[in-house]
Amino acid sequence: MSRVLITGASGFIGRHTLEPLLAAGLEVHAVSHCGSPVGTPAEVTWHRGDLLTQECAQTLIQRVRPTYLLHFAWYVRPGACWTASVNVDWVQASLRLLQAFGDAGGRRAAIAGTCAEYTWQAHTHCIEKRTPTRPSTLYGAAKHGLHIVADAWARQTGIALAWGRIFCLYGPHEHPDRLAAAVARALLRGDVVACSNCRQVRDFLYTPELGAAFVALLLSGVTGSVNMASGEAVTVAEVVSAIAEEAGDRELVHVGARPAVSGEPDRLTADVARLRDEVGWRPSIGLREGATRTVSWWRQQGSFAPPASRRVTS
Amino acid sequence: MSRVLITGASGFIGRHTLEPLLAAGLEVHAVSHCGSPVGTPAEVTWHRGDLLTQECAQTLIQRVRPTYLLHFAWYVRPGACWTASVNVDWVQASLRLLQAFGDAGGRRAAIAGTCAEYTWQAHTHCIEKRTPTRPSTLYGAAKHGLHIVADAWARQTGIALAWGRIFCLYGPHEHPDRLAAAVARALLRGDVVACSNCRQVRDFLYTPELGAAFVALLLSGVTGSVNMASGEAVTVAEVVSAIAEEAGDRELVHVGARPAVSGEPDRLTADVARLRDEVGWRPSIGLREGATRTVSWWRQQGSFAPPASRRVTS
Repeated sequence: MSRVLITGASGFIGRHTLEPLLAAGLEVHAVSHCGSPVGTPAEVTWHRGDLLTQECAQTLIQRVRPTYLLHFAWYVRPGACWTASVNVDWVQASLRLLQAFGDAGGRRAAIAGTCAEYTWQAHTHCIEKRTPTRPSTLYGAAKHGLHIVADAWARQTGIALAWGRIFCLYGPHEHPDRLAAAVARALLRGDVVACSNCRQVRDFLYTPELGAAFVALLLSGVTGSVNMASGEAVTVAEVVSAIAEEAGDRELVHVGARPAVSGEPDRLTADVARLRDEVGWRPSIGLREGATRTVSWWRQQGSFAPPASRRVTS
Repeated sequence: MSRVLITGASGFIGRHTLEPLLAAGLEVHAVSHCGSPVGTPAEVTWHRGDLLTQECAQTLIQRVRPTYLLHFAWYVRPGACWTASVNVDWVQASLRLLQAFGDAGGRRAAIAGTCAEYTWQAHTHCIEKRTPTRPSTLYGAAKHGLHIVADAWARQTGIALAWGRIFCLYGPHEHPDRLAAAVARALLRGDVVACSNCRQVRDFLYTPELGAAFVALLLSGVTGSVNMASGEAVTVAEVVSAIAEEAGDRELVHVGARPAVSGEPDRLTADVARLRDEVGWRPSIGLREGATRTVSWWRQQGSFAPPASRRVTS
């Protein structure tokens, strides 16, 4: 049975790969700096480790000796991740991981890239082999620089490397400060949600779908950059609306109450021809169904009873 | 007095920066894995260290606390450097160095990039902000990936980073297997030199000139990529000829006796508008004068008496 190692396995994306990997018949090894999280499949072997420390990757890879590698671990705190210096540490940690993987006989890896690698113009429709890549953030540059080095190294050493560029996401286990989570949680509490004009057009994917898409990518023969997205352009308003539909009083959503984040494109969408036609994967859960499941998951987390005085406008 | 740290300071390029840095009134600290080389200025403070080891950069930077950094150290063995895995280690080592430099209050750095970062087509005239960068070698990809990460990190942290893309070189202290050195040495011995068709068009710069150009770049306010080149296109045949003119019997140069290296462009030249107009530097030593000085230097190294039986054709 082939072994796969997943980094960032307890995170927002990584945890959604565990079930599909097991379903594909792989022996699944997961690494996380906080150990085995609640609610993940019992068949997964968990390893505790911090890949930012010098020896972690080497020790871990020697122990597991995986044929496959799925690498999600990175610093992803909303807002702070765009500029944090630790992005540079993650470049180094990722290169150490790949080298250890190659040295131990690894054959195929898929790594989480980002739509922030593309040059962001006001209207950007991202096509892997055509759209220019001039990242405007340290996060995007760190991922993109890593990809350039890793891709050349992989070709040199005969490792098949796929690079999945992630767009917007929503779903269970999202960081509470990110869009869909923040809206769902606030409305479940009965709080006001202050939004920007919400006119930005984006590609949103339900995160468990992204997990399945990454597993499909890993098990395909596709190499190079692949946009990991739904292929459907929606406005942020539509996402907020879909969440609000499930979570409570739509009147609590105050559109236009906050300025838009400067420097972000009005339109940032994904061409998904590679994912659909070469990897052979397409989404099966649309925005409405994804919103229903997301809000349901947040509701299960509890602690959302609205205190009488909690009508915030921040 | 401002302090500058030079890595790779005993190498083919680095050592040629020492005199100009001293002439500019800087306190010069040099690091090399083999310590202080013979024939370098006495005013330079040498530090022995291997930047590939984990703690070296941190320790060194803490000791020197430089305002300026010139980073040349890399794996550059002719031929092998294009594909060696150690290129990936140098990406990590360079990021560690930059982070330590920034943490210790460094203000301005210039790093050695390469013309191998550009997309090599059959005829490539390289213009920094226009020519596409899709390296075809691991060496080029490692340098380019490093630049993408380092450039974004530097903007973030307020460090002024210049990235000097180096083209073809010749001059004293060249590796004996590289073109000009190999031709000069063989002819001084009276040996046959087997060359390719020598029709490739390139930009060649006399290495001591490159040292001076890098110091000018470091002390300018210019950031981003700058082609470090003469701006004059010559054929390899002209370079070989200029060396042969000084070194011995031109009849010993057998043009066409070897196949050309596949994958290299027929023409690879540099636009030097940034170097000339923004940095304000231009070369003062042409090919003829550079060849004279190069051969003279090799002659001084001695041990070139031709043994009677040494007429090789390899």
